[in-house]
Amino acid sequence: MSTPNDTRQRIIEAAKNRFHDRSYADVGIKEICESAKVQKGSFYHFFPSKRDLVLAVIDEFSRDWADGFVAEAFDPAIPPLDRLDYLLDAAYFWQKSVKTVKGRMPGCLFGNLTLEVSTQDDILRAKLNAVFRQAKSRFQDTLEEAVEQGAIPPLDTEKTAEAMLAYLEGMILLAKAKNDPEVIYELGPAIKTIRIDTKPN
Amino acid sequence: MSTPNDTRQRIIEAAKNRFHDRSYADVGIKEICESAKVQKGSFYHFFPSKRDLVLAVIDEFSRDWADGFVAEAFDPAIPPLDRLDYLLDAAYFWQKSVKTVKGRMPGCLFGNLTLEVSTQDDILRAKLNAVFRQAKSRFQDTLEEAVEQGAIPPLDTEKTAEAMLAYLEGMILLAKAKNDPEVIYELGPAIKTIRIDTKPN
Repeated sequence: MSTPNDTRQRIIEAAKNRFHDRSYADVGIKEICESAKVQKGSFYHFFPSKRDLVLAVIDEFSRDWADGFVAEAFDPAIPPLDRLDYLLDAAYFWQKSVKTVKGRMPGCLFGNLTLEVSTQDDILRAKLNAVFRQAKSRFQDTLEEAVEQGAIPPLDTEKTAEAMLAYLEGMILLAKAKNDPEVIYELGPAIKTIRIDTKPN
Repeated sequence: MSTPNDTRQRIIEAAKNRFHDRSYADVGIKEICESAKVQKGSFYHFFPSKRDLVLAVIDEFSRDWADGFVAEAFDPAIPPLDRLDYLLDAAYFWQKSVKTVKGRMPGCLFGNLTLEVSTQDDILRAKLNAVFRQAKSRFQDTLEEAVEQGAIPPLDTEKTAEAMLAYLEGMILLAKAKNDPEVIYELGPAIKTIRIDTKPN
């Protein structure tokens, strides 16, 4: 028997890759209802608006990443700087595998949505910011550990973490423009050259 | 008297900031026609499709930048590495000024469009790629000069140029997520720390 949770989850499943592969605007509620085999009334019961749906998709995606390759990459058993390599490899192979199947590399869902909706929807923007904040804090923890272990000279771990995240998003953007995941492979290792020094007091 | 060129230009003027401030999908032809005070028939005479219009907008924007602050930043009279500072300052102040007027920083038109349309329109994607290629070659020329003058040790100027462009786009993306141009101000200078070494033969 289909439970309310099943229905909600079916809607999210129908929506997530569509939003990721295309854009927020391009995917309509009608299409999602048809794909998930739910009535519009049922859709609106779970998601009063398309924005509510995309908020749930962002939650689900960031949880998937966090439990999946992000958890693997940021495994405390791996030396801190190697975690960055792991993360970049995972991003590269993931984009490459999607391209192999669908012919297009979709880029980063969070980056895509940020550039599409940020000027138009502050609720979505705040949600995306929360995802980036979490990503930044993982980079920052890694850098703090690397400094502590003497693997890199002291630096402004918070700013450098944000700079590394910017670089990751920018690489994925250029790779998407070329529809070529190799961009991530070639530019990726340079993430470790980025550094912002602590401002003297 | 209104010439065909005036009409075409009026349409482009009505379209460019709308696409930049919102998104490609969000701006309709009807709205542009109303704002430009042209009939739909006239619109389609100049632009058979919305895609043709956005291609013209990309051309006009990249020409505006190229003639404006990009030309100033990449002035051969400025020491090569200082050109990067100039470019970042210009990007920062431009985003800040738009935010002051409109309350929102729009980010980079080319980056925005890339993430919105790349999986769906190969013609637009190719156009955006051409813009990025040109931007990359400016960075590359700058790096080559810097190496020649001994300002930086030799490196892979092409890959490093692409990495710097990725960083620029990524910073603007995170700044847009926060609606805060200060991100560009704070992270910007680190662009000069990025380097990719030439692969040994």
